[in-house]
Amino acid sequence: MAAYDEKQIKTLVREVLKDMNIRTPETGDNDSGQRTGGGKKIIIIGAVAAGMSAAAKIKRLDKSAEVVVYEADEHVSYGACGLPYYISGDNDDIEKLYARPLEHFAASGITIYTNHAVTKVFPPDKKIAVHDLKNNKNKTDHYDKLLIATGARAFKPAVNGADKPGVYTIKTVPDAEKIREDILRPGTRNAVIVGGGYIGVEACEAMLKRGISVTLVEAADRLLSAFEPEMSELARKELEKHGVSIKTGEKIMKIEGAPRAERVVTDKASYNADLVIAALGIKPNTEFLQGSGVLLSGNGAVITDREMRTNIADIYAAGDCATVYSHIAGENVYLPLGGPANKCGRVAAVNMLGGDDKFIGVLGSAAIKVMDIEIATTGLTAAQTAGLKIDFAETIVEAADIPHYYPGRTPLTIKLISEKKSGRLLGASACGEKGAVLRIDALAVAVYAGLSAETLSMMDFCYAPPFATVWDAMNIAGSRAAQER
Amino acid sequence: MAAYDEKQIKTLVREVLKDMNIRTPETGDNDSGQRTGGGKKIIIIGAVAAGMSAAAKIKRLDKSAEVVVYEADEHVSYGACGLPYYISGDNDDIEKLYARPLEHFAASGITIYTNHAVTKVFPPDKKIAVHDLKNNKNKTDHYDKLLIATGARAFKPAVNGADKPGVYTIKTVPDAEKIREDILRPGTRNAVIVGGGYIGVEACEAMLKRGISVTLVEAADRLLSAFEPEMSELARKELEKHGVSIKTGEKIMKIEGAPRAERVVTDKASYNADLVIAALGIKPNTEFLQGSGVLLSGNGAVITDREMRTNIADIYAAGDCATVYSHIAGENVYLPLGGPANKCGRVAAVNMLGGDDKFIGVLGSAAIKVMDIEIATTGLTAAQTAGLKIDFAETIVEAADIPHYYPGRTPLTIKLISEKKSGRLLGASACGEKGAVLRIDALAVAVYAGLSAETLSMMDFCYAPPFATVWDAMNIAGSRAAQER
Repeated sequence: MAAYDEKQIKTLVREVLKDMNIRTPETGDNDSGQRTGGGKKIIIIGAVAAGMSAAAKIKRLDKSAEVVVYEADEHVSYGACGLPYYISGDNDDIEKLYARPLEHFAASGITIYTNHAVTKVFPPDKKIAVHDLKNNKNKTDHYDKLLIATGARAFKPAVNGADKPGVYTIKTVPDAEKIREDILRPGTRNAVIVGGGYIGVEACEAMLKRGISVTLVEAADRLLSAFEPEMSELARKELEKHGVSIKTGEKIMKIEGAPRAERVVTDKASYNADLVIAALGIKPNTEFLQGSGVLLSGNGAVITDREMRTNIADIYAAGDCATVYSHIAGENVYLPLGGPANKCGRVAAVNMLGGDDKFIGVLGSAAIKVMDIEIATTGLTAAQTAGLKIDFAETIVEAADIPHYYPGRTPLTIKLISEKKSGRLLGASACGEKGAVLRIDALAVAVYAGLSAETLSMMDFCYAPPFATVWDAMNIAGSRAAQER
Repeated sequence: MAAYDEKQIKTLVREVLKDMNIRTPETGDNDSGQRTGGGKKIIIIGAVAAGMSAAAKIKRLDKSAEVVVYEADEHVSYGACGLPYYISGDNDDIEKLYARPLEHFAASGITIYTNHAVTKVFPPDKKIAVHDLKNNKNKTDHYDKLLIATGARAFKPAVNGADKPGVYTIKTVPDAEKIREDILRPGTRNAVIVGGGYIGVEACEAMLKRGISVTLVEAADRLLSAFEPEMSELARKELEKHGVSIKTGEKIMKIEGAPRAERVVTDKASYNADLVIAALGIKPNTEFLQGSGVLLSGNGAVITDREMRTNIADIYAAGDCATVYSHIAGENVYLPLGGPANKCGRVAAVNMLGGDDKFIGVLGSAAIKVMDIEIATTGLTAAQTAGLKIDFAETIVEAADIPHYYPGRTPLTIKLISEKKSGRLLGASACGEKGAVLRIDALAVAVYAGLSAETLSMMDFCYAPPFATVWDAMNIAGSRAAQER
């Protein structure tokens, strides 16, 4: 038996705490470990969320770093999530979608080549092959560090007629511009949207705002499958209330019409379409990595660790083309969303400069506006929790945002997922006319911190009649969940 | 040197974890430890927030418990925070301020005596003396457990003329009813509000809504002293924009007029007043405890522990008449707010029934609507942090709630207080036209969990253009604060 004195034991305790990744006020949460890179040449492939977030961060950390960005598209650094609102006319100024003009990046010392596709990566030589799309020229370039931030692309359904004019995806600025033009054609009355995820639902809203009748076709049995079924149902009701014809459990078979798309034929019916929007999801842009040795996951996403490193030295990946660390799952998953893409770009930037920054991880927080209601989610859904073989409780509470004596009271639905054994919150969803999304932000922090439903029930949230009830809806949900242990 | 075996070390580790108040999935956050009381007689003095919250909780936990409530007032269980909005006319139905009618409590088996003031407590005999105010009769009653939930009362300034007709406080339903009557008198044009705290500012708004000109007199050099000075300044600007004449650093000297109040005279000037509202703060209703042995703090609040126990066996206290555990200070403080009062009432209920429930503590979360803006705070302010001799950074960020391409964008100001050494968040404030209060709720959870500014900068908040920017204002504030270490 070894003998330890108190001091040694305390040191051991601290080591265990550190190994268990337990946060204490003493140690703080995270160590950015930012160092500088000393004039390295960093090539970034892709100039949207993750890529430009990384480029800007590198230059803030180390002015001496050479940053070269290749972008296959014409456009850089645009807010892709704003495209549906450009289509709807909520925003008529496409320029507003650009986070910063090209000149801004040039002024920061970042070199951007647009219309330049990277076609190959040669890790042993630290080289890439680049194709200048406008001038049809090829060149090679050398990197010290490489960031793959090529994002993902939307795809059209693999059915006859999907390539006809009048069939669109919504992923790029030109996509949105073409749809806007088409909407304004005289005689555009009906749109069929294929796919009921985020983009499909946002496209619904855009079409309704334009006075166009919408049929939404979804092969699964519900909309918004990333959310809890109860939230999907509330979204369906809201869309139907506004006149959308929703066809779940229907599979698209072909698109008819000549030369333009005129009809969408499913396995159950046929729908007139002056316009078809395919919102079937996205696919990582990683084909050019074939043969490079960079490991891809089943869906084609670059496999990364918490530091955005790939399996190949000096090659990093971030954004919709890569996996991302999940705080709850404790492993990397595919979750192509704008918030994480920007965050991972920054983490990659720190580490490409020699830092040691670990991404704290995504929670799966997401929100969508569906006409007059907000829907949001964070953490695990019931189905995901069941998949992890965790014994959990699901709790749904119907509450209100503010007291009944204050004008403008609206209902709120909150769903919590909590572990039965510990009471720990694993996930939350909310829906309401107002205040649902920001409440999920608060619950995201609770899930991140591993707080219990019981603690949530007593959490000191702000109370004032214009904003909340004395027991906020989150307290009420926590209290109910605590009773289910 | 002592020798420890593995088991002993493990025990030590657990002790350290417990001492450090570290939460783990294994231990959970909190243990409600709810047990039943077996037909005990529980007397509750006071029938508003803490008292009725406790009464209802007791009956939910143990139907056999006898619950008797004495209330000196005519009214029970009303939403005192709703009074300003009854005065303003946002709500014209006083009945809506009652959480539940008397009959509801009777049906739950709770006996309530209104217009009954408890005048004395005799701990050795477990007895109280009660005065029936309507019938002018006295009686005694016996308790097994006693909850003091007598709240606090507003007071008028200690100056000549403060007792004239037309000088009001806003604390009870009759207060609000008298002010409403007065407002509707023909010729009510000017109001002077004395005191610039929550109630004073809310009274301002109510008067403005009624078309009454307002002069607000505050002895301190700023409004809303519970908030950061920057928030006070934003509140001042907003009120001035709406025509309020704000006189900080002025002390009220007397109230003139006959028979009604007509003028408020300060040390600097004199202001016409058809109506004077005194909003100078509140004082715990604990005079009846003199001689009982129950310990009071300097301001008269009953000193309690985290379980709402007083220094005397079987006597508990909760709400505006008592102190409350502060999560950050690690000790009990006086913070008379509706949210904590309700929560502490429940904790007292559990413990009076033999449970062992510790209140998780307040963070000082509070919110106020000031005309068209929201202001909220949680955790420590800069001044409070300085008072605790903590080396801290203060970070102010001006951001926006949503992207510039989405309609309805409004500015947000966020201030963070973080410990320099660890980066740990200690406090946060926010101001904006929308979304400020609920963001403070998210930051309240972060402060509670002891997260760092750096973690906040990377927190996975919901992103969608109608609700947030891709880096939410909270991420931006966290990022800026992390740089100040």
